[in-house]
Parts: sequence; structure tokens; C-alpha cells
Amino acid sequence: MSFLQGIAASSGIAIAKAYRLVEPDLSFEKKTVENAEAEVARFDAAIAQSKTELEAIRDNAKENLGADKAAIFEAHLLVLSDPELLSPIQDKVKSEKVNAEVALKETADMFITMFESMDNEYMRERAADIRDVTKRVLSHLLGVKIVNPSMISEEVIVVAEDLTPSDTAQLNRQFVKGFTTDIGGRTSHSAIMARSLEIPAVVGTKVATKDIQNGDLVIVDGLKGEVHINPTPELVEQYKKENEAFEAQKAEWAKLKNEKTYSQDGHHVELVANIGTPKDLEGVINNGGEGVGLYRTEFLYMGRDQLPTEEEQFESYKAVLEGLAGKPVVVRTLDIGGDKELPYLSLPKEMNPFLGFRAIRLCLEEKDMFRTQLRALLRASTYGNLKIMFPMIATLDEFRQAKAMLEEEKAKLISEGVAVSEDIEVGIMVEIPSTAVLADQFAKEVDFFSIGTNDLIQYTMAADRMNERVSYLYQPYSPSILRLVKMVIDAAHKEGKWTGMCGEMAGDETAIPLLLGLGLDEFSMSATSILKARAQIRHLSKSDMEKMAEQALQLPTTEEVVKIVKEAANLK
Amino acid sequence: MSFLQGIAASSGIAIAKAYRLVEPDLSFEKKTVENAEAEVARFDAAIAQSKTELEAIRDNAKENLGADKAAIFEAHLLVLSDPELLSPIQDKVKSEKVNAEVALKETADMFITMFESMDNEYMRERAADIRDVTKRVLSHLLGVKIVNPSMISEEVIVVAEDLTPSDTAQLNRQFVKGFTTDIGGRTSHSAIMARSLEIPAVVGTKVATKDIQNGDLVIVDGLKGEVHINPTPELVEQYKKENEAFEAQKAEWAKLKNEKTYSQDGHHVELVANIGTPKDLEGVINNGGEGVGLYRTEFLYMGRDQLPTEEEQFESYKAVLEGLAGKPVVVRTLDIGGDKELPYLSLPKEMNPFLGFRAIRLCLEEKDMFRTQLRALLRASTYGNLKIMFPMIATLDEFRQAKAMLEEEKAKLISEGVAVSEDIEVGIMVEIPSTAVLADQFAKEVDFFSIGTNDLIQYTMAADRMNERVSYLYQPYSPSILRLVKMVIDAAHKEGKWTGMCGEMAGDETAIPLLLGLGLDEFSMSATSILKARAQIRHLSKSDMEKMAEQALQLPTTEEVVKIVKEAANLK
Repeated sequence: MSFLQGIAASSGIAIAKAYRLVEPDLSFEKKTVENAEAEVARFDAAIAQSKTELEAIRDNAKENLGADKAAIFEAHLLVLSDPELLSPIQDKVKSEKVNAEVALKETADMFITMFESMDNEYMRERAADIRDVTKRVLSHLLGVKIVNPSMISEEVIVVAEDLTPSDTAQLNRQFVKGFTTDIGGRTSHSAIMARSLEIPAVVGTKVATKDIQNGDLVIVDGLKGEVHINPTPELVEQYKKENEAFEAQKAEWAKLKNEKTYSQDGHHVELVANIGTPKDLEGVINNGGEGVGLYRTEFLYMGRDQLPTEEEQFESYKAVLEGLAGKPVVVRTLDIGGDKELPYLSLPKEMNPFLGFRAIRLCLEEKDMFRTQLRALLRASTYGNLKIMFPMIATLDEFRQAKAMLEEEKAKLISEGVAVSEDIEVGIMVEIPSTAVLADQFAKEVDFFSIGTNDLIQYTMAADRMNERVSYLYQPYSPSILRLVKMVIDAAHKEGKWTGMCGEMAGDETAIPLLLGLGLDEFSMSATSILKARAQIRHLSKSDMEKMAEQALQLPTTEEVVKIVKEAANLK
Repeated sequence: MSFLQGIAASSGIAIAKAYRLVEPDLSFEKKTVENAEAEVARFDAAIAQSKTELEAIRDNAKENLGADKAAIFEAHLLVLSDPELLSPIQDKVKSEKVNAEVALKETADMFITMFESMDNEYMRERAADIRDVTKRVLSHLLGVKIVNPSMISEEVIVVAEDLTPSDTAQLNRQFVKGFTTDIGGRTSHSAIMARSLEIPAVVGTKVATKDIQNGDLVIVDGLKGEVHINPTPELVEQYKKENEAFEAQKAEWAKLKNEKTYSQDGHHVELVANIGTPKDLEGVINNGGEGVGLYRTEFLYMGRDQLPTEEEQFESYKAVLEGLAGKPVVVRTLDIGGDKELPYLSLPKEMNPFLGFRAIRLCLEEKDMFRTQLRALLRASTYGNLKIMFPMIATLDEFRQAKAMLEEEKAKLISEGVAVSEDIEVGIMVEIPSTAVLADQFAKEVDFFSIGTNDLIQYTMAADRMNERVSYLYQPYSPSILRLVKMVIDAAHKEGKWTGMCGEMAGDETAIPLLLGLGLDEFSMSATSILKARAQIRHLSKSDMEKMAEQALQLPTTEEVVKIVKEAANLK
């Protein structure tokens, strides 16, 4: 047996056989073939095998994941039947006497280069299809296996270098009991997905794909961030017990579902959820969320080839507002650009996308796109308790511009006879240091703040939170971060406004005592963290946490802050 | 006549004919040639022309720029004589009956791909040589002209999209009277170079290369950031007068060369210079610098294929310390990584290099490299007034680690019997928001702060200062920046320490009144800005500027700050 230490990304314990989701080695050498006819036959056989395989994957995807997820494989099957692609390969084998791998790769690369150079998103996607299909046919030519996450049909722990959004889209929750990756941190895509799917996960182990073989028995301990490979029966037994205890604790937490959140000494805070689509509402309600603190509207704009219409957006916003039945819903306007691309907007590549043209910066330029979103929001506002929030605000001028556009659209709608709520609060994300430092000035003009700690920490520490080499600087409990958080909360309270937080920090058990002590009003987190947070806060004294937080602000390092939090809040 | 508004990058006025430093169009079509022999002859002629041209460039470079700058052209000439490259091209023309352009391009691309894929810096440089040479031969085949900045032999205004370090290295100051570019801002490489060379420059005009033709008469007004194309004789006359006035003013400023810097009401500050190499010392002394506030040691590490030895570094540090004859010299330890690459360190590419693994982060990992620099500095310390400064410090822990390594090397040297100064101050750059916010804690442990505004502003505003699309957020006078600057200065003074500033802001006439008011002790700037700054400060009352700065800290926007500065400091 052996052991890996990683980062606890999603709590819970999973025990199952390993399933490696790793790219196979598809390298080959150029050869001269004697018998070209036989080589063409070998190629045709690989095509036939690829088709059979793709049909199975498509059928499986259709059944378990839905028709939209299966469409991609339909496209791949079309490529495999295209004589425009197949004939030149067969001809090349015959005329140049090269092995099929070479003929396939060179011909495919020519088409890929051609399609990629076209100024047309549809054709560029065809290039991606050809690339995927080429890999599959090559795997059959070379006799190696390509892994198909959608084909998993027994309980497994997925082991991968990292999980991309398209990988996770293909995972079947019924069979994937847990996962572990080489790279990533608590705020990486794979970690956020794991929490949202409630799958135990340990990320950033560095060596999981090296140390774990297919079929190894693996324990993923998403509570402590540990992975055990081929554990002893005693350890398996011990973990089964721990898992039972964890399940029992979850059952205990579940009793708090319909409770409000009060500290031990009677101070009330709101616990709300971060969501991406109306589908996430079920999780919010099941986990006792008191509303939505961050509705990320990006997903409406992604995975498609043109902007969503006002009507499409209206329907989504209305669905969320109605689904929450009067509970608050904070909608963040489009936060795209930088690392989150929309191919149909064709934004230029940037040297430092995290410091680039994104979110409100983009929206203030792409005015039509932004006004469409604002109109959809305003029209939906009568269906619930809407609050609108602008992302990446760095200056008051940006806020004033965005607010003015909102007011203009509101006036237009009213003059057109469309009903618009009169009580829409308009706030901003505080995720740029400048805005935290100037919060007293902002507080005079906004209705609320929501602190986006994922970005605020990376800018305050000047450390890309996706970059492993500087991950040691991602320090949520740094006294400098706490001081900025305090500036924001105090500034809001002085003007009678409220402050929320919608970064990962808001649901973190070490941060919660500090945030309670600093006076945070609203904690927005993964829905699956809400009940645990509620249980924790019920055992904390606000006035004790205030004293502890006051002390933390005067400490020089993160380590010293963590030490006093753990003592004051009785954490391990 | 027409007019362009850009960004004033280097002050002064220049009037001369335009010289476009723009890449020519080298596109061509594939053709079948009837007479392959004639086509090979055409190719051979282009090779011969290219050789003649390169020999002239090499000789000129050797004479005007030095043998090291000429070496690159020597390498290009070798490529042009290499039968391994030439024969396959000639053969291809003959066997495939294609035009020489196609044969050249395809053959060269093959070699370039091959060399670039090698894990060897030397071979990768050969790929760059072949690429350059291919362009030159193509230009002769196509009958278009490649511009050679080193061949400029009359007074010109250089017009370019942007100027790279290698472009500027080839410019002959005798003939280049000014320049203007399409892109860039006040802190871009080209702007910093222009100030260091004292060449008037206007950058970021967006359209200079579109609107200005070779031979157009151009006025570059580096004071107002204006470019006039084919001006009227009256305007030329007017500018000649303005230039005379500017020269007269410079003569006036020159009288302050040996003066100390006092405000109108007798408050003393230090005006020191930013330098890159010992060669820059002459400019510091000629411009009345009271020392060096930032010695960028990167240049010692760049443009070579291995790390500089301890001895090489020692000689450079010693030269600067001796050259300043006891005046303070603040040396910044290696600030490399991110956008500034050292090929021989082979650092991985990063998604956001400005938020990446650079400066002290890299040095704390590459311990041998860092200790070598520290030893060289310690050994040089007895030759003058050395202060050591660590860049990109984000946490106290990083400072403590770096300081501990310095102390260890010092102890080792002393035990080896090497003399080391006992009075070396050890400070940090404050260029990360976290460090500014926590300055009170840092001030207990460091000897001084130097605020690096270029980076501090970009991180505080979360806006890449090299990215045109977010350049509106590069706001040095933002109240949020001023508040951070004040936190740093106040924290230092409370512990009896001093604060300098070595970003571009320190030499800016709008910033100087604010910085004086906020209590900055040391202003480090381009040597060429020192006399002007000294003249400005002599006319400012510290106590008036204090009141104005206090008011600026409570304003909501940059625009309002600029307004009160201009009033209080009597600026246009």
C-alpha cells in the first residue's frame, strides 16, 4: 500500500477501483510498406473498429447523459464516413508506400490546418472533430486503448492529470464515486465541479497518474486530502467507519435545512449559494440555501455559437427568480473574457488574461450585448427578489457607467409599458484591490458589496491562482486579505449597506470564524457547504470571534492567523 | 498637414524626415517555372545581393555600434554561404519546377522546424538566424526593401509599430532625432529607452505607421504627446522657437546640478536615478543625481547563454559603487521570470506571467543562483554605500527567507576572511498590494521601502500595463493608489525608516506634488528627469502639498485628484 497527500477539494470518502483517464501514447514511426493493399485493408479495419466504438459511446451517452452530450459523437461518425478525408489517405498509402499511420496523420493535419485557418467558428470546430477522430483511428492502428469516460459502467475512482469541463460533462455520477488529480487547487475547475456534484475529490497530488494503475483499490479521503493506494483491509474497514460517521454527521446537518442561521450569541447571517444555471436550484433548496448570492450568467453565453437572445436570457432569469420564490437572487452580469473565452466574440489573445479585457471592461465596450442582458434582467425582476451585481469594478467611473446604462434601459422599458420592479438593489463585486481600498467611496453609491475572494486574493498577492509554482501565495487567511475584507465590511456598514462574499473562502471552515468576527452579512458558497457552515456558526460566539479577528488583523503572517483561529473556533 | 495625438513618452521636440521601420510585405504565390535554370540563376542573384547588403550592414554596425552588435550579421552571412541550405533549394527548383520563393520558403521552414524542436538554445538561435536570412533573400526575390535601422545615415524621425530592444540597440543616436510608435504607453520598453537616450518620443498614436510615409516631414512633440505630419512652415517655425525655449529651460535646470533638493519651505528629499548598467552612471552624474535608487541587475543576466559568474557580478557592482563615490546605491536583486525571460534557465511558459513565478519567488527556489548574487554584492559592499533590495516581496516569510540567506552568505564570507561592510541596509520593493496593506508589519523588519509603482498600479487595478485595451485603468493618481502609498510611507516613518519610490510615477510632474505631500523621502527616476524634478520641488511648499494630498485621499476619482493637484501645484 502507499499514500499520496493532495488538496482536499470536495469532502466525503470514496473507496473503489481506479480508472485512469489518461491520454495514451499515440507516437509512431514512418515506415515503407511492401504490400500497400494490405496496408489499406489494415486502415479500413481501423476505421470500422472506430465506427463500432463510436456508435457504442454515442448510444451510451444518449442514454445516460442526454442527446446534447451525444451530438459530438454523431459528428465524429460523420467524419469517419467522409470520402473526402478517407480517399486521400488510402491513395497516399498506395502512391507513397507509407504506413497507414503516416498517411492518416499527414492528411488529417492538412485538413486541420486548412479548417483552423478559416475565419469561421463552425469550420474550426470541424478541425477539432478531425483531430479527435484521428486520435481514435490511430489508437486502433497502434493497438492502444483510448479511454472513454462516458463508457464507465462500474463504480470507480477516476484518476487523471486534470479534469476538463468536457471530461466532467461525460462522467456518470452513478459510477464515479470519487476522483483524484495530479494538478489543481481548491479553486480549480475540477474542484468546483466535484463539490457541485458532491463527489469526494483530492486534487494536486502531483503523482496520482504515475503511482496509480488501473484496477488498484483506492481510498479518496476528501476530508483530509489523502489518497491511499491498495490499502490494508484494516484501513478500508477504518475508512468505512469514518464514512459512516461522516454520513451520520450529514444527516445531523440536514436537520438544519429549514433553520435560519444564528451564531451562538444570536447574531444572524445569511447563507446563500453560488449557482451557474437554473438546474442548480434543486441543490440550493435541498441544502437549505436562503437564496442565491452569486448567479454566474456566463454559462448562458458558453458552449454555443452566438450570443443568447434577450428572450432566452429572460427565461433563465425568470426561472431562477420564480424557483427561489421571493428569496434574494444576486445575479452577476457577464464575467467573460480573459481565460473564459467566447469564440464568437473573437477577442484578441492577451499576454496576461487575468489582468485583461474582461467582465465589466468588456461589457462597457460591447454595449449592445450588455444592454440586452440588462433588459432581460429588468424584465425578469418582477418575478422575484432580484439584485444585480457588476463584476471586476476597479473605479467608481466604471460603476457609474454601468449603472447609467441600467437606468436607461429601465426607463426605456417603463416607457414601453413593461413592468419592472422598483426595488432592485444594484451592487458590485469587490475583487480588485483598488476597490477594496476605496470601499468607503463606493459605499456611498452602491447598494451592496459582494467580495470575490478568488480574484481578490490573486490580485492582492500578485499570484495567478491557477499557477502551481506560486500557489503558496494563495493565502486567504493572510492578514492583508483580512484587512481588505474589513475595510469593505466597515465601509458598507457605515453607509447602512450590506456585504456578502461569494468566493470559495465564504464556505471554508477556517475562514468562517474570521468572517463572522469581521461582520460579514452574507456568505455565498457551494450549495453542498451550506448545512455544514450553518452547523459551525451555531457553535460560534460572534463577540468572541470579533475579538479573535481584531487580533488576527494585527498579526504578521498567515500561519499565526490560522493558529489563533483554530484555537478560538475549536478546529482541528 | 495632419496631426496625431499620442502619449508623451520622452520630452523634447524633434523635427526631421520620417523613416518607416516597418516590416515589408513578403507574401508570394506558388508558380510553375518553365526554365528552371533561369530560376536558379535568379535565386543565386538574390543570394549575392543579400550578401552584399549584409556585409555593408555588418561593417556599419561594427563602426557605429560596436563589434558585439555586428556579430549577429556575421552569423547571417555564414548561413548565406551554407551549401547544406542552398543546395536543397536549388535542387527543389529544378526537380519540382517551382519558383525560387517557394523552394526557399519550404526548405527554410523545414530547417527552422528541425532546429526549433531541438532542446538546445544554440540550435534554436540558428533557427532565428535562418528565419531572418530567409526574409532578406525573399525581399530581393520580390524586389521589396527590408529596413535596416543600423543603416540610417541622415537625421530622421523613426516611425514604427513598436520598437523592440533589438531595434533600439541598432539605432544610431546621432541620426535618430525622435520617434513615434503605434502602440505602447509611458512605461513600455520603447518609452523607457527613449527617456534613457534623451530622444523625444510620442508612443501609442495607434496610426503613425498608417498615416506617415517615408520622407514626410514630421514634428514629434514629446512634451505634449503630439505628432505633426507635413506641417506648415509657420508651425515648423513655432516649434523651433518652442524647442529653443525648452533648451533654454534645460540650461536653467542644469544650474541645479550640484544643489541638494529642498522644497520652498525647506523640506529635504533625495532625487536619485534608476540605472541598468555601470554605463548609465555618466548620465546620473551629469544630471545631478544624489545616488542610485534602483540598480536593475537583470541586464547582467540577459543577452548571454549562461549565468554571470560571481566575479563578473562583483566587478559590475563594484564599478557602480565606486563610480558613485559614497553616494547611496540601492541594488535590486534579480527580477527575472514572467515576461523577462532568461533562455538558459528554461522556465515553463505561464498563462499570466505578470502573476507568475518571477523575481524573489524564483530566487528563493534557485538558491545557488541567488546566493551567488548575494555574495557578489556583499564582496562589493566595501567599495561604497550599498543598500540591497528584494523585488516582488508579498509576504513577511519571503523577506525573512531572503534576509536569512543574505546573513548566511555574510557569515561565510567573514569566516573566509573577506571584508564586508557592516552598514548594508536591507529593504524591499513594495509593488504588491498585500505588502502595502501590511506595511506596518514589514516596517518592523526591513530597513527601507521602495515603492515600485509600475507593478503596484497594475496589480492594484488588476490591469496589465502593457495591454492597450485596459490602459485606461493604469491610473497613478487614483485615490486607491495614493492611499496605499500613504500606508507605506506612514508605516516606515512610524518605525524610523525611510521610503523611496522607483516607478515611473516618481519622476512625473503631476505625481511629485502628491508624493511630496504624502511624505516620500526618496524619488528615483530616469536620470534625465532629475533636474526638472528638482526645479519643480523648489517651487512647491511641503505644507501646502500635505494639505492637498490629505484632501486627495478623500476624493472618489482620479479626475478629481488631478484637478486639485494642478491647481495646488500650478500645473497646466
